[in-house]
Amino acid sequence: MARPVTLFTGQWADLPLEELAGRASGWGFDGLELACWGDHFDVDEALADPGYVDGRREILERHGLECHAISTHLVSQAVCDLVDERHRAVLPPDVWGDGDPEGVRQRAADKVKDTARAAARFGVPTVNGFTGSSIWHLLYSFPPNDFEAIEAGYRDFAERWGPIIDVFEAEGVRYGLEIHPTEIAYDFVTTRKALTAIDRREAFGINFDPSHFAHQFLDSAAFVEEFADRIYHVHVKDSKKTLDGRNSILGGHLNFGEAGRGWDFVSPGHGDVDLESVIRALNRIGYDGPLSIEWEDAGMDREWGAQDALAFVRRSDFTPSALAFDAAYERS
Amino acid sequence: MARPVTLFTGQWADLPLEELAGRASGWGFDGLELACWGDHFDVDEALADPGYVDGRREILERHGLECHAISTHLVSQAVCDLVDERHRAVLPPDVWGDGDPEGVRQRAADKVKDTARAAARFGVPTVNGFTGSSIWHLLYSFPPNDFEAIEAGYRDFAERWGPIIDVFEAEGVRYGLEIHPTEIAYDFVTTRKALTAIDRREAFGINFDPSHFAHQFLDSAAFVEEFADRIYHVHVKDSKKTLDGRNSILGGHLNFGEAGRGWDFVSPGHGDVDLESVIRALNRIGYDGPLSIEWEDAGMDREWGAQDALAFVRRSDFTPSALAFDAAYERS
Amino acid sequence: MARPVTLFTGQWADLPLEELAGRASGWGFDGLELACWGDHFDVDEALADPGYVDGRREILERHGLECHAISTHLVSQAVCDLVDERHRAVLPPDVWGDGDPEGVRQRAADKVKDTARAAARFGVPTVNGFTGSSIWHLLYSFPPNDFEAIEAGYRDFAERWGPIIDVFEAEGVRYGLEIHPTEIAYDFVTTRKALTAIDRREAFGINFDPSHFAHQFLDSAAFVEEFADRIYHVHVKDSKKTLDGRNSILGGHLNFGEAGRGWDFVSPGHGDVDLESVIRALNRIGYDGPLSIEWEDAGMDREWGAQDALAFVRRSDFTPSALAFDAAYERS
Amino acid sequence: MARPVTLFTGQWADLPLEELAGRASGWGFDGLELACWGDHFDVDEALADPGYVDGRREILERHGLECHAISTHLVSQAVCDLVDERHRAVLPPDVWGDGDPEGVRQRAADKVKDTARAAARFGVPTVNGFTGSSIWHLLYSFPPNDFEAIEAGYRDFAERWGPIIDVFEAEGVRYGLEIHPTEIAYDFVTTRKALTAIDRREAFGINFDPSHFAHQFLDSAAFVEEFADRIYHVHVKDSKKTLDGRNSILGGHLNFGEAGRGWDFVSPGHGDVDLESVIRALNRIGYDGPLSIEWEDAGMDREWGAQDALAFVRRSDFTPSALAFDAAYERS
Amino acid sequence: MARPVTLFTGQWADLPLEELAGRASGWGFDGLELACWGDHFDVDEALADPGYVDGRREILERHGLECHAISTHLVSQAVCDLVDERHRAVLPPDVWGDGDPEGVRQRAADKVKDTARAAARFGVPTVNGFTGSSIWHLLYSFPPNDFEAIEAGYRDFAERWGPIIDVFEAEGVRYGLEIHPTEIAYDFVTTRKALTAIDRREAFGINFDPSHFAHQFLDSAAFVEEFADRIYHVHVKDSKKTLDGRNSILGGHLNFGEAGRGWDFVSPGHGDVDLESVIRALNRIGYDGPLSIEWEDAGMDREWGAQDALAFVRRSDFTPSALAFDAAYERS
Amino acid sequence: MARPVTLFTGQWADLPLEELAGRASGWGFDGLELACWGDHFDVDEALADPGYVDGRREILERHGLECHAISTHLVSQAVCDLVDERHRAVLPPDVWGDGDPEGVRQRAADKVKDTARAAARFGVPTVNGFTGSSIWHLLYSFPPNDFEAIEAGYRDFAERWGPIIDVFEAEGVRYGLEIHPTEIAYDFVTTRKALTAIDRREAFGINFDPSHFAHQFLDSAAFVEEFADRIYHVHVKDSKKTLDGRNSILGGHLNFGEAGRGWDFVSPGHGDVDLESVIRALNRIGYDGPLSIEWEDAGMDREWGAQDALAFVRRSDFTPSALAFDAAYERS
Repeated sequence: MARPVTLFTGQWADLPLEELAGRASGWGFDGLELACWGDHFDVDEALADPGYVDGRREILERHGLECHAISTHLVSQAVCDLVDERHRAVLPPDVWGDGDPEGVRQRAADKVKDTARAAARFGVPTVNGFTGSSIWHLLYSFPPNDFEAIEAGYRDFAERWGPIIDVFEAEGVRYGLEIHPTEIAYDFVTTRKALTAIDRREAFGINFDPSHFAHQFLDSAAFVEEFADRIYHVHVKDSKKTLDGRNSILGGHLNFGEAGRGWDFVSPGHGDVDLESVIRALNRIGYDGPLSIEWEDAGMDREWGAQDALAFVRRSDFTPSALAFDAAYERS
Repeated sequence: MARPVTLFTGQWADLPLEELAGRASGWGFDGLELACWGDHFDVDEALADPGYVDGRREILERHGLECHAISTHLVSQAVCDLVDERHRAVLPPDVWGDGDPEGVRQRAADKVKDTARAAARFGVPTVNGFTGSSIWHLLYSFPPNDFEAIEAGYRDFAERWGPIIDVFEAEGVRYGLEIHPTEIAYDFVTTRKALTAIDRREAFGINFDPSHFAHQFLDSAAFVEEFADRIYHVHVKDSKKTLDGRNSILGGHLNFGEAGRGWDFVSPGHGDVDLESVIRALNRIGYDGPLSIEWEDAGMDREWGAQDALAFVRRSDFTPSALAFDAAYERS
Repeated sequence: MARPVTLFTGQWADLPLEELAGRASGWGFDGLELACWGDHFDVDEALADPGYVDGRREILERHGLECHAISTHLVSQAVCDLVDERHRAVLPPDVWGDGDPEGVRQRAADKVKDTARAAARFGVPTVNGFTGSSIWHLLYSFPPNDFEAIEAGYRDFAERWGPIIDVFEAEGVRYGLEIHPTEIAYDFVTTRKALTAIDRREAFGINFDPSHFAHQFLDSAAFVEEFADRIYHVHVKDSKKTLDGRNSILGGHLNFGEAGRGWDFVSPGHGDVDLESVIRALNRIGYDGPLSIEWEDAGMDREWGAQDALAFVRRSDFTPSALAFDAAYERS
Repeated sequence: MARPVTLFTGQWADLPLEELAGRASGWGFDGLELACWGDHFDVDEALADPGYVDGRREILERHGLECHAISTHLVSQAVCDLVDERHRAVLPPDVWGDGDPEGVRQRAADKVKDTARAAARFGVPTVNGFTGSSIWHLLYSFPPNDFEAIEAGYRDFAERWGPIIDVFEAEGVRYGLEIHPTEIAYDFVTTRKALTAIDRREAFGINFDPSHFAHQFLDSAAFVEEFADRIYHVHVKDSKKTLDGRNSILGGHLNFGEAGRGWDFVSPGHGDVDLESVIRALNRIGYDGPLSIEWEDAGMDREWGAQDALAFVRRSDFTPSALAFDAAYERS
Repeated sequence: MARPVTLFTGQWADLPLEELAGRASGWGFDGLELACWGDHFDVDEALADPGYVDGRREILERHGLECHAISTHLVSQAVCDLVDERHRAVLPPDVWGDGDPEGVRQRAADKVKDTARAAARFGVPTVNGFTGSSIWHLLYSFPPNDFEAIEAGYRDFAERWGPIIDVFEAEGVRYGLEIHPTEIAYDFVTTRKALTAIDRREAFGINFDPSHFAHQFLDSAAFVEEFADRIYHVHVKDSKKTLDGRNSILGGHLNFGEAGRGWDFVSPGHGDVDLESVIRALNRIGYDGPLSIEWEDAGMDREWGAQDALAFVRRSDFTPSALAFDAAYERS
Repeated sequence: MARPVTLFTGQWADLPLEELAGRASGWGFDGLELACWGDHFDVDEALADPGYVDGRREILERHGLECHAISTHLVSQAVCDLVDERHRAVLPPDVWGDGDPEGVRQRAADKVKDTARAAARFGVPTVNGFTGSSIWHLLYSFPPNDFEAIEAGYRDFAERWGPIIDVFEAEGVRYGLEIHPTEIAYDFVTTRKALTAIDRREAFGINFDPSHFAHQFLDSAAFVEEFADRIYHVHVKDSKKTLDGRNSILGGHLNFGEAGRGWDFVSPGHGDVDLESVIRALNRIGYDGPLSIEWEDAGMDREWGAQDALAFVRRSDFTPSALAFDAAYERS
């Protein structure tokens, strides 16, 4: 469909935007999905400094790059989470503050609202990110869950995100939750519940990333079709199961990239994701937004991989048919 | 091998021991693995009342039942866990106390020590149970784990269980940890780490239950062989994957028995566990202890199921060969 | 669930009912599902002779057999079919008449109405059968179908069966269409369309037979759950795929039992049907009607097979759980 | 083998030959397999107008394109078929005439004879097409087939095609039946029967198209080897099974391209056809004719797809070895 | 088919026939296939002592046991083999003699001829055994085989077995070669070649044993059908692949029963052999001879296993249908 | 990793080095792994003629080609083998001599020593080859192996190769045994035994070739990791299983390239070898030597194939990551 292929900058935050833009442009990307960390896109500056967003735009344009979305994965994770030391490592100091969990959650929510405002100012229609979850730790029901506590988790999500969605609506920007373990929604069932919890408000949709579905044995294309009206943005990432009877699908408390895990992230096209089925599903639902490569592969050089991934996506992203199959077959 | 086939009483705690013993005996079980809850086996009474263990024994013997192990799954879970409301529902009031987490953990540890003492008094060589885990909630590394925190979790386990193991050693009783999600050890990698953390002390081994391996895509027989010298007790339970592209292997925050899960527990012989391979492995390592049916199947009547399971285990538990294959083939 | 296990008599029509009842009773069946051919159940006599149904009932009762349904597969097939010589071989002469297709269809419809009346008189709540289909021959769209013709096929079905359903409603009897290739409904999609075409009238439901699903690669349990409120009767039959790269799933214009087919019917438990999943689904939807063995296996002696099938169904039909999984696990 | 790669023009009949030739040439095709409909190749004109075939040839040569075969799929389908309204949509008016089935069949047979004559005049050695079948609608034997009727269908085929083959023999042209559901031959069994029915006359062979084999679970390479001496032409097309437990392999009376089917046609290289195995088989039997891409994919733009398919076939069509494997390994 | 189920005595040669007959009879076997080693059946005595065969028969009859075949696996192996030390361990001293290979081969051939004569005297129609092979060691072609040497191996087989077959013909006894690695025939290809080499003489057929096919990934039922007219006797044995990425299908030079092999023999019903498919194939070809259990499972007690195997074979050996599937379905 | 991609010249020995070097260079190879046969690398001349190695080097350098290894597969095979006529075809006349097996073995051992010396003189660090095996013919244990004979085979290997390894150590050259059926080591188990037999001396390691693992159902990547410190050289070759129920995995005594085998060698990327997993494993163990294409595919033109294989290896050989996955994800 000749959709724009962009690079999500989250895994490149060690590089200044100027440098990364030069490389991505040289590799042939159409644009960048800017992470709101590193120096890629600073929400506070965007709101404080009238010239900031123009400056960011100028860098992109100079390199011939588009921007369709900015991403607040790190901050948004704290909105519903049971906050702990891990959050300190990824949150801006002003959001972390004294680290008191409820304070962190509220400051994170405020920052996500500001991100909507900054996106509007920057002129991008979508902010991608996470939600966190107050119930993720209840994943395996032992000691037996009080399942009313699960319901309460969805209510907590709805209460915390309602006011955020208000701001997105007001700004005319959409939020794309990346369906992902550790979030309020990570599969079909939980996505249904999460969308219901917020009354399927239109400003809150999905940043679809099939790499999180493959290791859960979920059908990515079926997900795209079921949630067609909420697919606001698409990540292209891949994961691969490495199950040999000794590696657990649950991962063994091992870091990504360590031997012994039952699955791991790999460069697009190198794993279990059936991208063609996803593309066909996106064609059917009429999605014409960007395919944004979120590149993560602990076993591959990222520069080699980014270019390999771009080529893979380009050759996978075909245009759907404009005419019915048998139309041309008939006499006339 | 004509191993004794016992019934773990944990899922029958609503029935008095007297009644359950009658039924189990009638169905043909060889013995019971007594849960330390319901009225099946009361640790405090066993220590306080000199006649208690004889009374329990009398009930069993009257029904022709053996007892090879008692089980402290509910209390032991609290030893390392981040304690929350769910524990209140399964802990004895004196262990829960005021519910302050650290206090609960310490009282749980004390109770497990008492369980060792009670087992010794009762004359059973094994106590089965869990450990809990201070790091289970870090299962999926996002926000990115500080993996030093994982290491700290194993040290916490070792510190809390060291003194407990001392008591087991002193009493001449062995602890069998049921390798299980939510515990300090739930797969090959974590079992290796847990055993290493306690210097592979002999009093601490494994209550092996293959139902927790099948849904993790782990090879139960290979586990038995790798940890041959620590297989102290065996549960026979089964689980079945129900992956259809819409059900996640992670379970969708759904209770056991609910539609939409990617796996569930089922009666032995009705799931993915390859019991014959497990039996062959147990034969190879020379395990001659009980096969204890822990019966859980949300879709089957438990009385029907217990008898079905017993018949299944009886016909699966064959004796290994006493002579080499070709010995009889040769001339002479 | 201790559902009654019955034998569908359609494949035994060469035996008089008296003789078949004796054998079935001796093998241990709980009842018979009487075919409306052979001498098993004669619709015309049932309506004409006030003592007929009592006589049938007497035979059954003398052998200790129940009857939950009668079956009109052969006549009902002609209601919508493009009638040809094959129908002559299976229709009663008075339905075939001069063989003019439209006349045959109307006489078949009348006979199905009479069958409802006879069932009412006989006191059985269900009549099983087929519908035929005016569009089955359009299965593969070449020459390209005008898909409006497919829609017309469903309208034809609704028009022909509407008046029949009226009679069923009036008589308080339900019709169970066996979802089956050559019928108006043979899979999920066509069942949805067929039920919609008749406005999901309650008197028209499904005689569920998983043997027709397995060779279509359909999930029988999922079908039971989707159409839960229309599962009125259940056949237990089995089929097995024999695909080796040379046998087509379409069957090669070969008769059942001939070598070279890509699938064939086999005795229950000898094929691809996952009966346990079906039983669990039936348990979930609360179906408590008969499990009626329709025995067809071209490679097995039917007497050996009927007994083998009965034993298989008995040991597969377990009762669902009456209590929640963890209920008994908890303290107290 | 550097076989010529041609484009079958049947799915492009909405484009004038002049325009299509320009595009195909620009994409790099070696030639066209001309459909005898649209304006691509007109059999009547070829016989009536001495300059017609030169004109067609001139267009092709101007674009550097070869022609190895012409195709009469639409007319030839009517030769044996039970003719209905669907045929009217694809037949030339003079073949359809008054639509009386037997008249249509005879006029279709005459037109296929003329197609042989036109092919000879045009200088191509092969005419591809179908046969139709008087027994296709008997695919599933219910009501039970009289299998003598199946035999009669093969005799009908032989009687209708005998005189046509006479003309092909006389003209020195070969007919290539595309083995395909709805034809007299659609798998191994039926191909054996069809070839036997016409005494394996050499003028009647096969246009092999693996896309019709994959969804029948047939081994395309084995077919090529079994019918090696009758493989006269090869189509490269692909199909993909989309079986998820709810989609039937029989297709649900759904059109190609609709969601819910259990399989569909896809662009070469995007489906289940193992083209490499087919190429190896073609190499073994010494086939050196064209690989003609019949492009059908309801989910892909056909221009994008035609080029993608061409590239795929080029890189798949390797030359077989001219020397034995170990020859060069040996000493000296 | 109620075929007789016999026990092959080869793996029980440490027990005297009297004792084994008592046990086998007690377990419910119908008969014994007597090994020509141990004290079970002595070829020399049978020829030398007129009362010997009556004595053997008397033992069998006293225990209600039939005998359909005797077996000369150990001696016959030496007929074509490159004889080495391993043969000394399994050959009678008079066959081994001085161990000179060619002498051993000739004496083994003479003994097999005597076995035919003894079988005739004993009144059994079949002698089972091996052939050995002069080319087995050329299994993997490196250093590259001169494939003319392979052909020479089949000629050697034909030359050595021709005179043996003459004796079998003269005695009216048939030889059943057990298709097996290390023999002149071990799969489809080599069986075709071996039978061709001896001009498919009728006195030389097959003792079919599916356990040797499963680990070669061969289709046992297809073999039965291809060689239908040469299936003279059937062994029921099983084997199981244990491939986990570290165990080679070639076996790692490990003995049966050792960990680390990629496959091993197991008790019938415990492995990869699809006995039902074999039974259906045997039914189709009309085989009504014995099903002889050759029991080998290095991980199971043989007494437990023999009984388990007998029960398994009894419930697997069903009678084929005597009437066509739809015959009873039709009206009348 | 931008490892050098070389071409093993063994299958091209019919071409003079000069000509082959020109072609390989033109195709883009980085170097050649020279076979010690044909005219590619002559061990005797290298030792006898001071200018020989410079001449070889000059040819390579003129074509821009590197050389990392030479190969002595044909001669080294004879060191432990039971020598027969097949060896005569592949051995130099001076090694074959009078063909007396023990003499051949000793002369072969001497020649391998000379090959180490020649390699040192030529300046390459590695000599690849085989070992032969005195026990390969005992692959299938019937007549039952005396497994002490297997042990003796490893001792024979150690005794014959010890003095050879001495020379390699002295010359500072390493030997790379290609793990391969017919050698002393062909899978995990036998590699462990072989390395142990020579006390894991460092001068003796492995030339890893995954094509020999795929048809044994072995995990190539796991092998690389287990024997990480002995992976001295890597061949890229592929093999494909062609199991259809009639083709044996043992090969049917058929030559490579013949129909009917259960597996065969194919050009890299066309078979079952998962090269990406191998590359990831090589990355993990830090292997930075050549990837040497040993090209064998009986169904493909070798010139077409060599280029296809080179392109495949180039795009498969990616560089591992230099930084941890999450490093760049974190704040700041």
